[in-house]
Amino acid sequence: MGTSERIDLEHGGEEVAEAAASVEKAFEGKEVPPWERQVTVRSMVVSLVLGVMFTFIVMKLNLTTGIIPSLNISAGLLGFFFVKAWTKLLAKSGMLMQPYTRQENTVIQTCVVASSGIAFSGGFGSYLFGMSSDIAKQSPEATAQDIKDPGLGWMIAFAFVVSFLGLFSLVPLRKIMIVDFKLTYPSGTATAHLINSFHTTEGAKLAKKQVNLLGKFFSFSFFWGFFQWFYTASDGCGFSNFPTFGLEAYKNKFFFDFSTTYVGVGMICPYIINVSLLVGGIISWAIMWPLIDNKKGDWYSAKLEQSSLHGLQGYKVFIAIAMILGDGLYNFIKVLGRTLLGLYNQFYRKSLGTSSSSSDPNSPPLLSYDDERRIDMFLKDQIPVWFAVIGYVVIAVASIVIVPHIFPQLKWYYIVVIYIIAPALAFCNAYGCGLTDWSLASTYGKLAIFTIGAWAGASQGGVIAGLAACGVMMNIVSTASDLTQDFKTGYMTLASPRSMFLSQVLGTAMGCVISPCVFWLFYKAFGNLGIPGSAYPAPYALVYRNMAILGVDGFSALPQYCLTLCCVFFVAAIGINLIRDLVGEKWAKFIPVPMAMAIPFYIGSYFAIDMCVGSLILFIWQRLDKVNADTFGSAVASGLICGDGIWTLPSSFLALAGVKPPICMKFLSRGVNTKVDGFLES
Amino acid sequence: MGTSERIDLEHGGEEVAEAAASVEKAFEGKEVPPWERQVTVRSMVVSLVLGVMFTFIVMKLNLTTGIIPSLNISAGLLGFFFVKAWTKLLAKSGMLMQPYTRQENTVIQTCVVASSGIAFSGGFGSYLFGMSSDIAKQSPEATAQDIKDPGLGWMIAFAFVVSFLGLFSLVPLRKIMIVDFKLTYPSGTATAHLINSFHTTEGAKLAKKQVNLLGKFFSFSFFWGFFQWFYTASDGCGFSNFPTFGLEAYKNKFFFDFSTTYVGVGMICPYIINVSLLVGGIISWAIMWPLIDNKKGDWYSAKLEQSSLHGLQGYKVFIAIAMILGDGLYNFIKVLGRTLLGLYNQFYRKSLGTSSSSSDPNSPPLLSYDDERRIDMFLKDQIPVWFAVIGYVVIAVASIVIVPHIFPQLKWYYIVVIYIIAPALAFCNAYGCGLTDWSLASTYGKLAIFTIGAWAGASQGGVIAGLAACGVMMNIVSTASDLTQDFKTGYMTLASPRSMFLSQVLGTAMGCVISPCVFWLFYKAFGNLGIPGSAYPAPYALVYRNMAILGVDGFSALPQYCLTLCCVFFVAAIGINLIRDLVGEKWAKFIPVPMAMAIPFYIGSYFAIDMCVGSLILFIWQRLDKVNADTFGSAVASGLICGDGIWTLPSSFLALAGVKPPICMKFLSRGVNTKVDGFLES
Repeated sequence: MGTSERIDLEHGGEEVAEAAASVEKAFEGKEVPPWERQVTVRSMVVSLVLGVMFTFIVMKLNLTTGIIPSLNISAGLLGFFFVKAWTKLLAKSGMLMQPYTRQENTVIQTCVVASSGIAFSGGFGSYLFGMSSDIAKQSPEATAQDIKDPGLGWMIAFAFVVSFLGLFSLVPLRKIMIVDFKLTYPSGTATAHLINSFHTTEGAKLAKKQVNLLGKFFSFSFFWGFFQWFYTASDGCGFSNFPTFGLEAYKNKFFFDFSTTYVGVGMICPYIINVSLLVGGIISWAIMWPLIDNKKGDWYSAKLEQSSLHGLQGYKVFIAIAMILGDGLYNFIKVLGRTLLGLYNQFYRKSLGTSSSSSDPNSPPLLSYDDERRIDMFLKDQIPVWFAVIGYVVIAVASIVIVPHIFPQLKWYYIVVIYIIAPALAFCNAYGCGLTDWSLASTYGKLAIFTIGAWAGASQGGVIAGLAACGVMMNIVSTASDLTQDFKTGYMTLASPRSMFLSQVLGTAMGCVISPCVFWLFYKAFGNLGIPGSAYPAPYALVYRNMAILGVDGFSALPQYCLTLCCVFFVAAIGINLIRDLVGEKWAKFIPVPMAMAIPFYIGSYFAIDMCVGSLILFIWQRLDKVNADTFGSAVASGLICGDGIWTLPSSFLALAGVKPPICMKFLSRGVNTKVDGFLES
Repeated sequence: MGTSERIDLEHGGEEVAEAAASVEKAFEGKEVPPWERQVTVRSMVVSLVLGVMFTFIVMKLNLTTGIIPSLNISAGLLGFFFVKAWTKLLAKSGMLMQPYTRQENTVIQTCVVASSGIAFSGGFGSYLFGMSSDIAKQSPEATAQDIKDPGLGWMIAFAFVVSFLGLFSLVPLRKIMIVDFKLTYPSGTATAHLINSFHTTEGAKLAKKQVNLLGKFFSFSFFWGFFQWFYTASDGCGFSNFPTFGLEAYKNKFFFDFSTTYVGVGMICPYIINVSLLVGGIISWAIMWPLIDNKKGDWYSAKLEQSSLHGLQGYKVFIAIAMILGDGLYNFIKVLGRTLLGLYNQFYRKSLGTSSSSSDPNSPPLLSYDDERRIDMFLKDQIPVWFAVIGYVVIAVASIVIVPHIFPQLKWYYIVVIYIIAPALAFCNAYGCGLTDWSLASTYGKLAIFTIGAWAGASQGGVIAGLAACGVMMNIVSTASDLTQDFKTGYMTLASPRSMFLSQVLGTAMGCVISPCVFWLFYKAFGNLGIPGSAYPAPYALVYRNMAILGVDGFSALPQYCLTLCCVFFVAAIGINLIRDLVGEKWAKFIPVPMAMAIPFYIGSYFAIDMCVGSLILFIWQRLDKVNADTFGSAVASGLICGDGIWTLPSSFLALAGVKPPICMKFLSRGVNTKVDGFLES
């Protein structure tokens, strides 16, 4: 799982950092099933169910704010719970053929992450939807060749031809990354610890309690979503438009919108992220936009529509882009630098290694029992290199043939170039992710937007070419790092690389069908996707499209002084990051994260307030009862996120069936209310 | 404290029934201060503060539904907390002159109950407000002599001349009631146990926890009231009009109105009361009223205004009255019967007593240490009989002179008759209350309405005469039972009868000023008191006025078939009560209480739903953690009731200052909403 931008990725790893005395000793008596029996039918069924569920959740997050927290823990918990319940049922009826092992659990986890990962890397909230006419309407002068409206068929086809390349490109390198380099992969390690803990007696008990709590908050959140639904007869109705801090604040997007999803997300994200969001919202909506609005008629024409990018909206979008790019650039350079440094050290050490003892079989004390057993299992089942190479070439050829049919603007030779460079970038990303837990997939995607977009040029449909190239690049780079992350998890739970790979392939295939379908459901059911101020504004769609326009047209589209402001914020984003890194961790946690600050620039701070409420709840809980808060916090958060996310499933079916909510809960100022009462009486 | 009808009175006594091993042994070392030092300045200041607070709460309850739960526990807790905090503060500054004793605590309790009791017995939600033109407008053909609008001056004067008689009438009988008859007075006993427990080390710790919790829920409830306020720009706005179960149900008054007061009340009232309310609401608003509404144009003219008593409103009011009278009559006869039986037994035993050993001083083992010490203290400070008689006569004369000046319709000889009969009725009520914990004050009041009203006759302003007579009677009877109840509490906490009496007098005097003032504040601030469907419908005002009209005019005012229906419900109320008594306690708790069923007949079931939510919360809490729920349930409930009640203080000041809420949270059906949106855009 990733995030549209980074947001959660600093987090993950801290959770289960110790506990590693000797895990494998505890599992010594338990047999590890052969790889064919790790990928069972039941595990695939459970994966499918969870894949659909998490795709809904990720899609909802994509289309509302683009902030996607790490759902690994909920996926792990629910996967464990479902199969456990299933095996218990079968055991009672005497039909249980095979006990539930942690390897199978890992397979499920991998498959779910792979399938719901497509919901993110498929770009349904960013590059793909950015091509649509809904978004194009909000950007300046789009011709027919700059538009590609969503279609279920081509979206599935596109997903299939671009999503598997990442898998094949890195498979041969797995031993180097995991065994030789011993990369940490904090999220993958944390997931492995979680799965290992589930399969101890103690851990299973705890997991049961956590699932129980998750279930309660799931139900609460689901029924709260259901209850809210009744009061949203039209736009601007219902709890999601509750002017909690007054109508004036509401107009500037400061309100608590009663979304349990974002309260849950706030509980998972670190405090500083939530605070950064709020700070960003205050800087933009409370200070900058009102000031710029005062310049209406001076800096830009007063007659423009509200959504025109030549007016205030332009400042919002482009300043946000500037900050995102500034932050992205800084971190790209930083992570790339660390990657290169890390690689240099690896090879330097290796060249010394022959003379030293680090990988010498004569010095066994350096390898712990755990490591020994894990390496043993990891190297048992091999995936031949020829298989990976043939797979990569076959899919690349298919892709080069098919993608230009989908996007005529993206010429076949662009794709060839991408596919030649991609494996190197994929490796960089996987390595960087192993070091820092930070996938730069979306940054590589933006790189593709600018380079391919500029190469194609405006007259040749550079906008679509850039966005499509972004998709191709992001998919490769993102799946590559996900796969390696999963290999690490598999390594630590003794799952076979073959079963992991198979599970990844199956999961990706599921995702390639599920994600476009779920997006299609949202698209058809809710009608107004991507419209600013609606329930699903899909903020990154506009941001990505405008990056593509910037790449193709340069800065001509920007309103007055906007470029200056953009430069200021671009530099500020780099500066703040630099300061964060220089002052050390002690102070860094009090300095806001520019990337997080940028998101509310465009859509407002209502979700930031939700997330701060989540933070506050967790904070108070920790003050009252630290142990329980730490143990059960993420279960509660997952319940809140999943329940509300799953409610979108029935709610979209209701919308498709034409069932509309019966009541509008409306908020009127006293003056307007008097008028309305007069109107209603007459 | 009483209730407009009985509601809570079955309850009280059960709470602290045992614990009586030997209470006084535990307090053996502690000196009992002389009576002059039991009524301290600090205790009167605290009483005044709490008196104002509880008057607000009782007034709010009076004017919304008329259901007033027992607030003794909250008064006890808060009284203890305030003086304890005060003495702690003084002790730290070295200025503490006198430690805080349970006698002083009892004095505060007594004073608070006396002062806030006037808010109930003063009839601001019933007979007194029933005289106003606001209520008269809703009844048929009222002439000027049938109307007496509220006025601060005459209300205070009236309260002063009628509220003290009850005190003087029963003072001479206190020894007979408490020591000789050993009446239980469940509520008074429970309060005494509570106060005694506070002054043990263990109890003080527990009380601290309870106060803490009370404070938390107080704040929550207060701020929730504050938050709600912002969204109530006009009638029909805000959370109190939230169509929780849909607009159709809302029209029939089925909705959860988010009132923390009634959720708290629901937690204090027994389950069966809450269920009775809901059953009553369903029978009336879901079944009967829609059926009767279908007969519009047949049973009654279709052209009538909605509030006309000749239409549907008449059925609602008169059927409710019939049930209240049926229930009242049954219980009047029952309690009177038990009173007479009890008295017969007392005197029969006494006449045997000289030959038996029950009151023989030679048989000390019959008197426990506790009893001995309590009787000792109780008989130490005497109140001379001549003092009581002179007091009664002086106040009666003053009253006979002054009351006819306030209500010319109430001739002086009616009052003389009342004052001759009253002491006997007061004794009956106090005795009955001692046996059953059930004050029949409002039933005696209704008796006065019918007898004096009929005596005066319609042409002589019988309506006002009846209502005023009700006031005179109710005040005497109600304060008499309250006083005796308090003597029992004082007896068990070793408080002197003199300090108790003084505290009662001072508390009553406070109440005679506070209650009219608080009512005046509500009356001026909220404007639409007594209007059906508003925030303060004061349901009993209309009910009492119509009883008076019935008494004077007979049944001529009733719409068609209404009398038949009234008879059915009158008989049903008696029948249900009879069944409740016959089947025994095991089954009685599943049979609804007619009195409780009658209340929603008129105002709808929204508050019943609140109360059932309170029941549900308590029920779930008890299932999860019985011990804590029982210990802290009433603290939580008190917090909820008090916080919301106190919010009415600032809210009424805001209303007086002309500060209106800025936002209207409105609920519109989808169709209407579309129209409104069209109107707002144009």
